[in-house]
Amino acid sequence: MFFENQKLDKNSSVPLYYQLQNIIIETIKRNKIKEGAMLPTEIEISKIFNISRPTVQKALNNLVTKGYLHRIKGKGTFVTKPKITQEYTRFIESYNEQMKKSGLIPKTKLLEKKVIEADEKIASKLNIRAGEKVIKLKRLRFAIHVEEEIISDLNKPVLVTTVYTPYNLLPSIMNYDFEVFSFYEVLDKNNLSVKRVTREIESKNSDIETANILEINEGDAVSIITSIGFLENGTPIEYSESIYPGERNKFVLEISR
Amino acid sequence: MFFENQKLDKNSSVPLYYQLQNIIIETIKRNKIKEGAMLPTEIEISKIFNISRPTVQKALNNLVTKGYLHRIKGKGTFVTKPKITQEYTRFIESYNEQMKKSGLIPKTKLLEKKVIEADEKIASKLNIRAGEKVIKLKRLRFAIHVEEEIISDLNKPVLVTTVYTPYNLLPSIMNYDFEVFSFYEVLDKNNLSVKRVTREIESKNSDIETANILEINEGDAVSIITSIGFLENGTPIEYSESIYPGERNKFVLEISR
Repeated sequence: MFFENQKLDKNSSVPLYYQLQNIIIETIKRNKIKEGAMLPTEIEISKIFNISRPTVQKALNNLVTKGYLHRIKGKGTFVTKPKITQEYTRFIESYNEQMKKSGLIPKTKLLEKKVIEADEKIASKLNIRAGEKVIKLKRLRFAIHVEEEIISDLNKPVLVTTVYTPYNLLPSIMNYDFEVFSFYEVLDKNNLSVKRVTREIESKNSDIETANILEINEGDAVSIITSIGFLENGTPIEYSESIYPGERNKFVLEISR
Repeated sequence: MFFENQKLDKNSSVPLYYQLQNIIIETIKRNKIKEGAMLPTEIEISKIFNISRPTVQKALNNLVTKGYLHRIKGKGTFVTKPKITQEYTRFIESYNEQMKKSGLIPKTKLLEKKVIEADEKIASKLNIRAGEKVIKLKRLRFAIHVEEEIISDLNKPVLVTTVYTPYNLLPSIMNYDFEVFSFYEVLDKNNLSVKRVTREIESKNSDIETANILEINEGDAVSIITSIGFLENGTPIEYSESIYPGERNKFVLEISR
């Protein structure tokens, strides 16, 4: 059953269509309804909640506009899990700046902050010698909608990102609280602004460790973006690996010729 | 066992390191070795083929340089399945142009070419009414390396792409052979050049139908790129959905600020 024990409060001052909308959003949010699942028909919904068909129509129309549902002619109404539109593919911006632009409140949980020795891969990306000291920052990121609806589930991460930066260029990075400050913000403050980045995007099936961190299932598709950021003079200042659950993210591009 | 019944021809004029390289590439190509698999040590390989260690080193070094293998210090040598680097994320170019730039020979298999009625989704992307006629082209694409090595397996597709274009704008599209001509080439010839595109990239787990077409397993991660191309005057001329197996493709970006 689509709706389980959910009821409208007919004595409330909150309009019935709005209550119905919230019930549908809640159900999608709590993962009771999967992307692509079909909703009951308008007539069925009006019977379940004992409300008029225009009220149901109004609620469904609003949710189509908001991107929670889509209609297929002659087939029915289906759940579209709204994804966060990432512009990481277009701009050099901090996660915090990007989310704020989209009307979302960014939240960061620091998983690791430590000084390690660069292995050969990290060393080659940062153009340093293997064994040289780098700072490793691993952060889990969330996005909370400012309105009543939550695009990504409140408790589910949008991405996990690990950045490596040469220790010698800015040892004081270790002193910053990266649940408050963004990495780019800290670089800008210290006149080490990233001016150019090269990024690579790939799709992979998540391993069990990353799946646990991102609250998805092992094998679920993830987008992996690796990025190298360069200073004005061409020195690589950061190498990062970010993993985005496919079900919660999409990336946009605009190209002209 | 990594090497099965494979032998070097010590009487051949082909250098032994080169024969060994080809054996390793063949094994990777035929999928007997998975990405991330560890190779036997240099000493083990020199014993298996009864050749000197410097010969083994030369072969492995060349394959590291070519991107087939990578070394992790203190751990060993591992298989990296080379991916095709797609610049679809950077340029408005035909698949044929892109592959040629990368030194690959493009090959296209036409799966569908027909006139259909636009459903609501396609109509909204092309800014036409549902039910209006559109041309649907579904093509499977391959890439063959010009040298002796094959980046993507000869027989395995690089992507499957479906493009929709309003029938009325250029009905003669139906007359072209799309195993020979690229869609952009045909548009250019008819003064309907795409000047701007908006693209979205997502990661998904492949369904069984697409998996069969792309010769991957159901559930394997794929990159899905949806793209709308606009004429100079802002009219949408094409809406396309392209599906790339994650294991064979990566996309590059370069951004400045």
